[in-house]
This record gives sequence, structure tokens and C-alpha cells, in this order.
Amino acid sequence: MDFKLEVTDAKSKARAGVITTDHGQIETPIFMPVGTAGTVKTVHQRELNEDVKAQIILGNTYHLYLRPGLDVIEAAGGLHKFNGFEKPMLTDSGGYQVYSLKHRRKITEEGVKFQSHIDGSRHNFTPEVVMDIQRTIGADIIMAFDECTPYPCDRKYARESMEMTHRWLKRCCDRFDQTESKYGYSQTLFPIVQGSTYHDLREKSAETIASFGREGNAIGGLSVGEPAEMMYESTDLVCSILPADKPRYLMGVGTPENILECIALGVDMFDCVMPTRNARHGLIYTSEGIINIKNKKWEKDFSPLDPNLGGYVDTAYSKAYVRHLVHSSEALGAQIASIHNLAFYLWLVGEARAHIKAGDFSTWKNLILPKISSRL
Amino acid sequence: MDFKLEVTDAKSKARAGVITTDHGQIETPIFMPVGTAGTVKTVHQRELNEDVKAQIILGNTYHLYLRPGLDVIEAAGGLHKFNGFEKPMLTDSGGYQVYSLKHRRKITEEGVKFQSHIDGSRHNFTPEVVMDIQRTIGADIIMAFDECTPYPCDRKYARESMEMTHRWLKRCCDRFDQTESKYGYSQTLFPIVQGSTYHDLREKSAETIASFGREGNAIGGLSVGEPAEMMYESTDLVCSILPADKPRYLMGVGTPENILECIALGVDMFDCVMPTRNARHGLIYTSEGIINIKNKKWEKDFSPLDPNLGGYVDTAYSKAYVRHLVHSSEALGAQIASIHNLAFYLWLVGEARAHIKAGDFSTWKNLILPKISSRL
Ligand SMILES: [Zn+2]
Ligand SMILES: [Zn+2]
Repeated sequence: MDFKLEVTDAKSKARAGVITTDHGQIETPIFMPVGTAGTVKTVHQRELNEDVKAQIILGNTYHLYLRPGLDVIEAAGGLHKFNGFEKPMLTDSGGYQVYSLKHRRKITEEGVKFQSHIDGSRHNFTPEVVMDIQRTIGADIIMAFDECTPYPCDRKYARESMEMTHRWLKRCCDRFDQTESKYGYSQTLFPIVQGSTYHDLREKSAETIASFGREGNAIGGLSVGEPAEMMYESTDLVCSILPADKPRYLMGVGTPENILECIALGVDMFDCVMPTRNARHGLIYTSEGIINIKNKKWEKDFSPLDPNLGGYVDTAYSKAYVRHLVHSSEALGAQIASIHNLAFYLWLVGEARAHIKAGDFSTWKNLILPKISSRL
Repeated sequence: MDFKLEVTDAKSKARAGVITTDHGQIETPIFMPVGTAGTVKTVHQRELNEDVKAQIILGNTYHLYLRPGLDVIEAAGGLHKFNGFEKPMLTDSGGYQVYSLKHRRKITEEGVKFQSHIDGSRHNFTPEVVMDIQRTIGADIIMAFDECTPYPCDRKYARESMEMTHRWLKRCCDRFDQTESKYGYSQTLFPIVQGSTYHDLREKSAETIASFGREGNAIGGLSVGEPAEMMYESTDLVCSILPADKPRYLMGVGTPENILECIALGVDMFDCVMPTRNARHGLIYTSEGIINIKNKKWEKDFSPLDPNLGGYVDTAYSKAYVRHLVHSSEALGAQIASIHNLAFYLWLVGEARAHIKAGDFSTWKNLILPKISSRL
């Protein structure tokens, strides 16, 4: 992997760059649609390419490991061959999902023992195992196995967890560096900064993570329920420590507003289930504001979901038709809304990038933020 | 509407023709995907055009009348404008759905009073009302309001119901002929032959329906649970009476096998929910046989769903991937399978048409039938 930093904004910490992987280039800042089980829910691969204009998507190690299972993915020749998405993919470490299994997992220094949410079968994720799994899934970017602390989190737990995450990172790096890519293209490992909302812990963690000198770095444990201001503070602090010549990935963030604010703080990569999950509930993000498509007010509004987007779903369908579909629980409603919301997120980060390069990012951000955050 | 009969097969009663409507041409024999609520479930309009290669789709009057409601469809300028499908559309009369409401409807000579399955609200469908509704929906082909008898059905009920259907047809024609298209393109009305499985009733009904001299004729009340042989007998009998120079539409049929057999009996148009409904349950129709994609045997089969189809979903995705999606209840599985099954049905009737025109329809049918009916 290679990262070329093209422009750093003069009035903010926003950056524009290009990541190059063996599966192609990613222009940053970028939003990565979440494809949990090897599919971005309701969206065809062709639509990811042509309509959403996704440059990289995410897969979830926990889900893919359980279903279809590593033997299937390996027999296919890796996840790209399996699901037919030929652009870069990133996999999370499965940590987040495993911890969410509250009463079905046990964390020790060795790793995490857990029971599958599907069939109750017992499994063991260690830093080494998780590196091997992601090697086999075949992601271009592999995430370190960390513990994502909840919010709020007491200081002692946050510190000890962070220290274990750092020890696990050493084991991840050792294993990753001792193993090879299985499918002929190169893979890279991103470590993850933790430390909850404690500034000294975040500082410590960012320094530790930076010292590993990997090709990119991630910020985890945010957007887990803390106020947005705390998320911005931690992000700002961590970005000031992580090296400028490597991409910074803020995990699980967020709303369009969160994304623009964090681009301004120096983040290059984002992922979030919001655009697709909210789409399935009829929440539509547009350049003019947020729409609840179920509302009666859209019943006879035959204008496009977003007149400024111009892709297939924003020219072929109207608000009234999508309202009818969502209202009638017709699958096509969620499909249209998912493509639209993802296309909007990609449009937004593309606009941000264009304005960073044009030198007027902050002006543009201040103009567009109140609009896209308003409720229509 | 215009129908040009191009070729009648020498060794069977199969025909090839072209229907011309103001929304374009339909090459027969044709299969019409069912778009109940103004959407063919899980399939984008672009996919209907480019991947399924649909030439005409169906809408259900009962569903569209209740949701989104006539005021919305009329405000949009008709169903084509509302859902963005610019090719011909046919609407059923709502009769079939209304009768299915067993305990929530009352049939009299005047019409049918029923309660909505959505909110229990009370409505009244009469032949006149149903003509007006379909005028407003804006279908190119409008179906007469009939009573579809169940199977089995006692002779007395079948005869009386058929006679009422004939009286209702007179009222349908009167109303239809006294009213105009609302959106500037022409609409046509197809009457429906009933008579259950009684040959003399079917004969009587076919003669009556033919005597109305409409531009096309339909056969209803079949594929409601009777053995396939009885369906074929009734279809054969009715086709021998309905005029040859007008299209014949066999409603609600059927399996790929049913369709080929009924093409051989002189049917030109078909519709059925099977390809899409079965797709959602993982049943895949292919040129090599029927696949239950949930079966373990497809787990590592990375070949296309159907190597002979060649459309998007049959080149971009593998059996193993679709199995994983269906197995994991991922929406994309149903989406892929629905496009595939519809594309297969359209491919099948297209092949039938090509072989009718080439003069070897029966030979081809006898070769392909055992293959496409087998379980893989
Ligand atoms: Zn999120
Ligand atoms: Zn059917």
C-alpha cells in the first residue's frame, strides 16, 4: 500500500490524498460502505461501482468467519473473487462484534472466547488467529485485534484495556509480518488507537500506535455513545500525534456532519452503517437536508430524492414513489434509499476533497453543514 | 392496441406475434413479471429493462387502489410516470385479490363489498368502478372484473358465477367504451373466460367472451390448484374457440413447463408470481434444471447460476455466493435470484418464439422440457 498526501488545507487540518493498493486507488477523504457479510445490504456490486461510486468497501471478520466460513472464501480465492467486488476491501478485526456478544464471550490476555450468535458454537479469537483469518479473507487492509471500550468506561478499565490492546498489537504485527498474502496481492495492517475519552490515555495510545510505523493508523472506540464534542476532541488530539504521511481511519463514524467535522481534524477514512441502516428505515440524506420519506408530506412530491445528485436512483425515481415503497414495505424502497444514501456519502466526501484541493474547504463546509444537517 | 400474428407452428398450435401499444411493442409469446404494488419485488426498473428484458409488466388493481391510492397515481400522471417503467403495463381487475379476502368480502350481482387487509376500511368494487380505477391507474391493458372460481368448484356455482361474470363483462364494456383514457395514450380491455374445469361451461364462456369482439382475450380460473392435465385440457379447448387473430392471455400460469405446454396450445401471454416468489425462497430456474440454492452442494460451486444465460447476475455472481446470501438472509440473495429467474422466464419465452419462427418449436420443446423440469 502507498499513501500520497496531495494537499493539506491551510485553514483546517483537512487533507486530500491518494491510497494505492493492488486493487486500485482510493481518493481521500473517503467513506467506505459497510458490507458486513460480503454484501453491502440491498446493493448490487454493479451499483456500488456505477451508482454509489464506492472506492473501497468494508467486510466484517466475525460475520464472514462464521458464514460462509473461511474454507468457502479460501476456495473462492478470497473475498474479492467470492463476492465479485474487485476494488479494495478492508476488514475489521471482529473485536467489536465479539464484545457485543456480552454474555457469550470471555476476554483474557490470550484473546476472546465466544459463542456464535447463529448456532452457539464455541470459537477463540486471538491476535494471531485474527491475523490469519483476515489473511484468508483476503482484505487489502487488515485491522489489528483490539478491545473497543464502551462509553462511559471507568478510567482503570480504559487504561488496562488500552495496554492490552497495545500488547495484542505487538502480537498482531509479529504474526502479520511472519505470514504472507494468500492470493498474490499485498495486504497491510492498520493498528488502532484506543483510550476511551481520557486525553492522557488517547495521547499515550496514539504515540504507541504511531511507534509501530505501520502504513496507516486507525482511531477506534469513538462514536460509541459519547457526545459529539468529546469525539471531536479525542479525534483532534489523536490526529495531532499520528504521522501526517499515513492515512488516518476513524472507525464507525458517522453522520454527514460528523464526517465533515472529522475531515477538518485530519481524518482520511470513514465507515458507518448509518447510510444503509437508516435507508432501510426511510431516512434519506440529501444535499438539501434530511428527509423522513415516510412522512405524508412526500406523498405527492414527484421530485427526485435529491435534485443535485443526478445518479440513476435520483433521476429514475421520485420521493412519492419511494415513500409508497417504504410505506408498503416493498424491498425496492430500501434498495433505492440505500443506493441513494451511499451515493450521497460518497458525493459528500468527494465534494470535501474537491474543496480541499481548491483551497476553500472551510468556507464550503460552513455553508453546507447547516443545510445537510437540517430536517426537511 | 394492435396484434399481428406472424407465424403459427405447423406441428402444434404455438404462435408468434407482435402486440403494439402506445408504450411500445411486445413480442409474443411473452411472460409478464408481476409488479403487484407498482414494483416487481426487489427488482429495479433499470434491471427490468436491461437484465430481465421485460417487455410488459403487471400491476394489481387491488393493491394499487389501496396503496398509494388513486389520487397519488393520478397526480403522478398514471402508473408509468409514478414508477418510472415506460413500457406497457397490464392491470388485473382486483377480483382475484378481493375474493381471497374470504371473510372480509360479500359478492352480489352489483359487485363486491370488501374490507381492506391493511386497515379494515370498507370498499365497493363493481364492474363500473373497476373500469374507472384501471383507467386512472393508466394500464395499457385493462382486465374485465370477473369472479375467479376456486378448485374444486361445484357445477352449479361454476355456472352461475360464469353467467354473472358474463353480465359483469357487459357492464365493463359499456363503462369502458363510454370513458376515455386519462393520459393521452390508448387503453384496451380484455375479457376473461371462466367456467371452472367444466368443458361445456368453458366452451360456453369462450364463445360468449369471443362474441364481445375485444382486442384480446384472457383465460382465468386456471392454475388454482387443479391438476396440470385439467389446466391443459381447458386451455386447449378455450384456445380452439377464441379468435386466432387476437392475443390470448392465460392468467397466473405458471411453471416453465406449464408455460411451454400452454404456448403449444396457442397461448400468447402469461404472468405468474412463481419466478419472483420462489426466488425469494432460493429456488432458481436454469436452462439445466431447477436449483435449491440453499443446499449444501452449492457451497463451493463458484460457477454462474446459469452458464447459458449470460446477463449481469449470471456473470457477476456465483452459485456459492448466492447460496451464502440466501443462507444468511441477506437481501441481495433474493434480488439476484429474482432478476435471474425473471431473466430465465423471458429467455425461455424468447427461445420458444425463436423456435416457432424457425419452425422447430415442438422438437425444441421436447428436448428442453426434461432438462428445465429436472431438479439439480
Ligand atoms: Zn456508525
Ligand atoms: Zn402463478
